Amino acid sequence: MTHGDRDEHHSATGTKDVPRRRSRRTGRFRDTPTACVSPYIVRRIPGFELLSQEALEGVETQADWLLAEIGIRITGDPGACALFKDAGASVDGDRVRFDRGLVRSLCATAPSTFTMHARNPSRSVVFGGDNVVMAPADGAPFVTDMKQGRRYGTIKDHQNLTKLLQCAPALHHNPALICEPSDVPVNKRHLDIVCSQLRYSDKPIMGAVSTPERGEDTLELARIVFGDGFLDDHAAVLAGTAVQSPLTFNAETTGAIRTYATANQANMITPFIIAGAMSPATMAGTLAQAHAEAMAGIALSQLVRKGSPALYSVFVTTMDLKSGAPTYGTPESSLANFAIVQLGRRLGLPVRCGGHLTGSKLLDAQAMEESVASMTPPVMAGAHFIHQSAGWLEGGLTIGFEKFIADAEKCSSIARLLQGLDVDDNTLAGDAFLELGDESNFLGCGHTLRNAATANIRTELPDSDSFEAWTDRGSKDTRERAYTLWTRILEDYEKPPINSAVDEELTAYCTRRKASMDDAWY
Amino acid sequence: MTHGDRDEHHSATGTKDVPRRRSRRTGRFRDTPTACVSPYIVRRIPGFELLSQEALEGVETQADWLLAEIGIRITGDPGACALFKDAGASVDGDRVRFDRGLVRSLCATAPSTFTMHARNPSRSVVFGGDNVVMAPADGAPFVTDMKQGRRYGTIKDHQNLTKLLQCAPALHHNPALICEPSDVPVNKRHLDIVCSQLRYSDKPIMGAVSTPERGEDTLELARIVFGDGFLDDHAAVLAGTAVQSPLTFNAETTGAIRTYATANQANMITPFIIAGAMSPATMAGTLAQAHAEAMAGIALSQLVRKGSPALYSVFVTTMDLKSGAPTYGTPESSLANFAIVQLGRRLGLPVRCGGHLTGSKLLDAQAMEESVASMTPPVMAGAHFIHQSAGWLEGGLTIGFEKFIADAEKCSSIARLLQGLDVDDNTLAGDAFLELGDESNFLGCGHTLRNAATANIRTELPDSDSFEAWTDRGSKDTRERAYTLWTRILEDYEKPPINSAVDEELTAYCTRRKASMDDAWY
Repeated sequence: MTHGDRDEHHSATGTKDVPRRRSRRTGRFRDTPTACVSPYIVRRIPGFELLSQEALEGVETQADWLLAEIGIRITGDPGACALFKDAGASVDGDRVRFDRGLVRSLCATAPSTFTMHARNPSRSVVFGGDNVVMAPADGAPFVTDMKQGRRYGTIKDHQNLTKLLQCAPALHHNPALICEPSDVPVNKRHLDIVCSQLRYSDKPIMGAVSTPERGEDTLELARIVFGDGFLDDHAAVLAGTAVQSPLTFNAETTGAIRTYATANQANMITPFIIAGAMSPATMAGTLAQAHAEAMAGIALSQLVRKGSPALYSVFVTTMDLKSGAPTYGTPESSLANFAIVQLGRRLGLPVRCGGHLTGSKLLDAQAMEESVASMTPPVMAGAHFIHQSAGWLEGGLTIGFEKFIADAEKCSSIARLLQGLDVDDNTLAGDAFLELGDESNFLGCGHTLRNAATANIRTELPDSDSFEAWTDRGSKDTRERAYTLWTRILEDYEKPPINSAVDEELTAYCTRRKASMDDAWY
Repeated sequence: MTHGDRDEHHSATGTKDVPRRRSRRTGRFRDTPTACVSPYIVRRIPGFELLSQEALEGVETQADWLLAEIGIRITGDPGACALFKDAGASVDGDRVRFDRGLVRSLCATAPSTFTMHARNPSRSVVFGGDNVVMAPADGAPFVTDMKQGRRYGTIKDHQNLTKLLQCAPALHHNPALICEPSDVPVNKRHLDIVCSQLRYSDKPIMGAVSTPERGEDTLELARIVFGDGFLDDHAAVLAGTAVQSPLTFNAETTGAIRTYATANQANMITPFIIAGAMSPATMAGTLAQAHAEAMAGIALSQLVRKGSPALYSVFVTTMDLKSGAPTYGTPESSLANFAIVQLGRRLGLPVRCGGHLTGSKLLDAQAMEESVASMTPPVMAGAHFIHQSAGWLEGGLTIGFEKFIADAEKCSSIARLLQGLDVDDNTLAGDAFLELGDESNFLGCGHTLRNAATANIRTELPDSDSFEAWTDRGSKDTRERAYTLWTRILEDYEKPPINSAVDEELTAYCTRRKASMDDAWY
């Protein structure tokens, strides 16, 4: 594998990254060829449309009413308020109100598709169009595995999880924080995190958003890898920020949006909503609020820099309205997420939602029941970026190694599902029927043998064997088998090559920056 | 609860059974009100259409070619061949061939909707239209639970599982064989099985199909419950038979079809296909074959008795083409099942497929990952009868008590999902936003309080609590919690009332019939 840092990127056109070669696969997931040959999924099935035009317009009208009558609070960032005021909004203290249609019109300059560049160009992904990109869980302070149990994450965990991401053919993008490395001082973490993404994977990265300075550090590290001028007209860092729902953006969020939009990097500004708490308990109102918030964030990014890339991004789930606990994969949250994809697509922007979410504490039946249910809406409705797709447990507080592997395999199955069902001469199998004669099955047919290798994808984790064979092997449940699988993948992992001068420069930058700060632990 | 056996049925119109009262709920699942008030689900979301018109026509054309050129083998039943010959088919030995379009035209007399009558009229279900009916796993020789492990089923297990079915609000129909009662002689089992369905539940029943005599026994037992003339123009027994795919019907199957169609009862004739063995390895050919087989069975039912009720029914899954093991919830099987619903709906008949299928041996992550994946196509595409919806493990060889409970709760969630997302003044929540002011959340809003009880369904099995609370309760995984739940439901179970004269007559019939036979154990 030739790696593409710096030199190759300078010669790239930047508008469309066709994979130039089949990248060498490290690690396992060997039998899931579908997703290995492509850095992202190209969808070939229709999108499911839950809501009627009339219902969608009802939600959009309510979002416009919210923006006009209730407004958005922008706290601690008069500069952001000023940008909105200059664009025609009315500002009353920290509350910004918009004429109907204004926010939507401000979103119109964001590109409908854009490329997120990876340091290995064959790993670059395209957001938008018929493409589907998946990334693992993001933001967990805790990690868990079957042997060590639940504990605070460390930089070693971060590296190991990034290695698993690198080996998973249907996980295409780094998250910002695959786990929190609690053994690194808070004010220096972002440096180690960005370097872990860049060194242990060659897939696209996400950046630090907690302060503008940490955002700038991320951009500097990216500039070392991609070359000085590259970032000016290519997105190579994705910035994920959260709206302080309901209807509020604080200075950390607006600061990060401004930092990354200024650098022409990609913004993913997400209302994080547990309906009943951060939004009304009913889903139509929740959707209207989320739509208003998501559009307002995108609008700000466009006011900072017209044409800078942005995703339409919403996170919505339900809560147990008796206990107050967030709940995942519920029918109400599924319905909301079907609709979110519709609302985002109508805006003409790449849509992010998802992925494999659960409140379970370990890889058990609840974990996969909720995860598959919560993954169904983005997959079926046609989301472009399905974030939080692997490892998520306990409402996102924990990332689990066994769960990561189960989800990653499921993502490979989703990649196959999205290829659809071909109806052609080979798949209609006329020759198989002619060959059958009085045979009682198709096992030995030429058609079967010819199609055996490609008809179905293979996954490693499910046990489809007989009860007797399964018992002979120790009656291991999925969690036990997943433990074996992820430890084997880590053993087999091979680090993707990186230009040694670049590698040294990353180290030098981090050393210099760390030396300029005292350790801070909170 | 007034029970409706015999007398009430005589006064029913039979065409549409509107539930006359909210039935008293026995057992638990108390917090899933959605499905409790209705004997079946009325779908309010669109159906997902995977295949284009052109692709569907490609499959249908191939099915016509199969019926014309390859034909269907009807073994051991010259009477069935004669019926087809009289209808215009050409018969060559046991092979029956049909001009293109003939089989489809023979299916046209089957009703597009029909009612399956329960002995409690408020439990009767309507197949077809926008309705969705769900039934548990069917046909397992083994049962398993966490404490006793895997073992041959007994009549006691049959009764216990039927009790669980009775208590599950989103399971609407008995299967033919919720488990095999291995402690009853083979030739007498059907009597105990039908009585177990009729006594421990008051939901619609399925009948014996292994011999015409056992079918007649089922019909006689139904006549005792529903009254002599009732069955002539009301369906009260559903007969589930299997096609001997590829393209073969044996005498057991055609005999049962003829027995039940003659009695104007409902046929569900299912190609049982593991693609690569009973059909080609590719899905378009598999669909064409399944479509041809399903239509041929329905056509036979119509030749026996025009207008007798029939479901369009197909079971398709994949296999590991290296090991030969059947596989469930795979992307290829999902794609096939999306298409099956489309093919059946185009024929204008109620469609059966589904449900919660898995190759796992216990209620673990694999079990629910595969189950939710295999349930998605019938739910999203719009199947009318989702069979095998609860308890299925190990490719159908085993029914699990813990799995049953997890699936049954999931069926309640599906019932809620199918109600869709309402966009109206209440759900848009304008008053909640006006009330919010500078509050940071909606928890105390009047709108939230007014909607708290109805906004979300509640399920009992998932643990959405904090890690600490979960740990304090013993760190129980889903399987352990499911064990507690099903044992509690069985403890709380109340037998639905049955007319004592009817009950005695059932006993007398079975005693008389059993006395006429020696025990046979195989």
